Amino acid sequence: MKFLSHRISWIEPSPLAKVLGRISELSKAGFKVISLAAGDPDPDVVPRKILAEISSYVIENIPGSVLYTPTTGVEDLRIELSKFIKEYDGYEAYPENIIITSGSTAALDLLIRILIDPGDIVVVENPSYVVSLYAFKQLGANLVGVDVYSDGIDTYTLEDKIRRLKNEGKKIKLIYTIPTGQNPSGATMSIDKRRHLLEIASKYDLLIIEDMAYNYVVLEGSSPPTIKSFDREDRVIPIGTLSKIMGTGFRVGWVVATDLIKKYVVSEKQPIDYCAPAISQYIAIEFLRRDVHKISIERSREVYRVKRDVMIRSIEEKIREAEFSKPVAGMFLMLRLPNVDGTLFAENLMEKYKVAVLPGKPFYTDDKGRDMIRLNFSRPSIDDIKEAVDKIGVLYRELKS
Amino acid sequence: MKFLSHRISWIEPSPLAKVLGRISELSKAGFKVISLAAGDPDPDVVPRKILAEISSYVIENIPGSVLYTPTTGVEDLRIELSKFIKEYDGYEAYPENIIITSGSTAALDLLIRILIDPGDIVVVENPSYVVSLYAFKQLGANLVGVDVYSDGIDTYTLEDKIRRLKNEGKKIKLIYTIPTGQNPSGATMSIDKRRHLLEIASKYDLLIIEDMAYNYVVLEGSSPPTIKSFDREDRVIPIGTLSKIMGTGFRVGWVVATDLIKKYVVSEKQPIDYCAPAISQYIAIEFLRRDVHKISIERSREVYRVKRDVMIRSIEEKIREAEFSKPVAGMFLMLRLPNVDGTLFAENLMEKYKVAVLPGKPFYTDDKGRDMIRLNFSRPSIDDIKEAVDKIGVLYRELKS
Repeated sequence: MKFLSHRISWIEPSPLAKVLGRISELSKAGFKVISLAAGDPDPDVVPRKILAEISSYVIENIPGSVLYTPTTGVEDLRIELSKFIKEYDGYEAYPENIIITSGSTAALDLLIRILIDPGDIVVVENPSYVVSLYAFKQLGANLVGVDVYSDGIDTYTLEDKIRRLKNEGKKIKLIYTIPTGQNPSGATMSIDKRRHLLEIASKYDLLIIEDMAYNYVVLEGSSPPTIKSFDREDRVIPIGTLSKIMGTGFRVGWVVATDLIKKYVVSEKQPIDYCAPAISQYIAIEFLRRDVHKISIERSREVYRVKRDVMIRSIEEKIREAEFSKPVAGMFLMLRLPNVDGTLFAENLMEKYKVAVLPGKPFYTDDKGRDMIRLNFSRPSIDDIKEAVDKIGVLYRELKS
Repeated sequence: MKFLSHRISWIEPSPLAKVLGRISELSKAGFKVISLAAGDPDPDVVPRKILAEISSYVIENIPGSVLYTPTTGVEDLRIELSKFIKEYDGYEAYPENIIITSGSTAALDLLIRILIDPGDIVVVENPSYVVSLYAFKQLGANLVGVDVYSDGIDTYTLEDKIRRLKNEGKKIKLIYTIPTGQNPSGATMSIDKRRHLLEIASKYDLLIIEDMAYNYVVLEGSSPPTIKSFDREDRVIPIGTLSKIMGTGFRVGWVVATDLIKKYVVSEKQPIDYCAPAISQYIAIEFLRRDVHKISIERSREVYRVKRDVMIRSIEEKIREAEFSKPVAGMFLMLRLPNVDGTLFAENLMEKYKVAVLPGKPFYTDDKGRDMIRLNFSRPSIDDIKEAVDKIGVLYRELKS
């Protein structure tokens, strides 16, 4: 169409968007779809009764809950988050350096809009969160992936790659990492690797964006210290969200920024959505003030651990050929189905068995994910997990026979 | 800072953002600030008790209200909006062509991201909504303003300007208009001008973005037909919002787009915020289904008409030198204070008298707004309107003496 901007570069919609759209269509048509697709919490683990009471209280008693908020967000929320961050993420975030965004999706997007020039190299974990990769690509960044193991990326390979790229005169801007409960691999980076990553960033003068989305969904042991907690050079820019413990539907995320970054992020944010939803911000204030987050974090840990274990046992019973590593945090498990095309597999599984999963390939910067699918274990019920894995097994055997 | 993108062009924050930030600071410091600044509804006109009940119902009973939604929005909301649009805006919007956005702010922003190339000319009303102007500028558009009268822009001048620019070989992309209850002038475009504007767009092959934010806040008479209702060429792209009747704090807006525009808008939207807040979308469904919007529209009309009249009477009594035209729709009145610098005036009014208004200048593409301030009459109470106008009068006399 002649009116379209020349800036537009068409990028295939993220598989998440396609799958969520298809789930919506199939549900509307009367099918029961079991979704292992999105990174949603279990809507019965989220303390919905309390949130319902809070939302009603907030709308009735706080006029501001139905009005615009400052672009940086409601001050009381920034104050509560400052305390929350100190307790859970172990670093100091002053309320005036927190910008409330529409989920951590918006936090990343706003941030990289002011950092990335087309052609800049961004180092990402391989695999990494598909919507984040999409955001980088849309700005014209060149992605360089470093393989993830169960204790995080290989930092020595990372340094090798960076050194080589620098020697070639390439411009590397930043490293994007989800160190805890990594999406989609489920990996959690070891403390040594966290320190090493920061050293490398310092040595080669790179920024790190630390995506803390899964920091409050640690299923075993205690949360490792954040990379930000070691940072003395303002080199790490943290983004976070209450999505995984309060609900993805509220769209409450944040970025913690220096004054300069904040100035530009706010400038970008104004025309994009003016402010994050007031209703969600005021609910979040009470969610934190009344310590509802503690209930939610505790419940998530217990329930998701059980669900993960059910998923793993089901896989071990039903799909012996499958390969995966056991996540100690987060909501996902990457499943390798040897000799199967993961993209076709996910499509068939949806159309034939009404089970939604994401193909592994779009999460990778190379071809390694071609025989993989990503499974979410937090949202589906235990029975649905069993049924879904059962059907994955059935389809796998159909395709292999 | 060396990490910043070269793409960044620093644009002075919109005065709305600055003023809302300052209100927040002053309130925190214990001052009572009367705000005539933002385009917020009266939080007591918005049926908050019913919304409180709805929100509680929704969170408790609809698991999806705390989860991600499809990027295009919840289907049931698109169905309800399709009916609402047909009734109130008089055109056919199929649910599959509606994209739910985070307020109409996001609707405009997403749309122009896929339409505007740097250097493109965008024709706007002079004055026009400052955040929209800001969004255009940020994408590198060149704004050409056409003066607004109480019955809308002068379409003959508009055609002259377009003809001249075309003759000079300039690339004009679109016309952006807020035909009803225009922000900030309060003007409502006559039916003849609406038809003429569409003819001109057709003749010179331009798009029209019709911003319908104030269509449901018509204070006198009936709503004029929308420009879109005359459109047979898919030339008009409508954007709308429930903000003014349900609350700006929910961030529920929409754009109605052809399949092609939709494809690109959705592609832009994904990395920006993934989806509009689910909680707000589900509340909006019930707001429309239960006919709460009818209550709100009726109440807004009655209350805002009274408030407008109080404001006008107060101005006539207290500031005889002031000039303005009486709005028949919308939430704003532009006040000319002869021989005063509106920007300094607004600053002094805030700091000395704790009354927040916006300077007129940033709403203009030229210097015409230099002695103007924009007043909102929907949000403040009647007593606050009187007090605020009184203080505007006092400061005006101080400055003139």
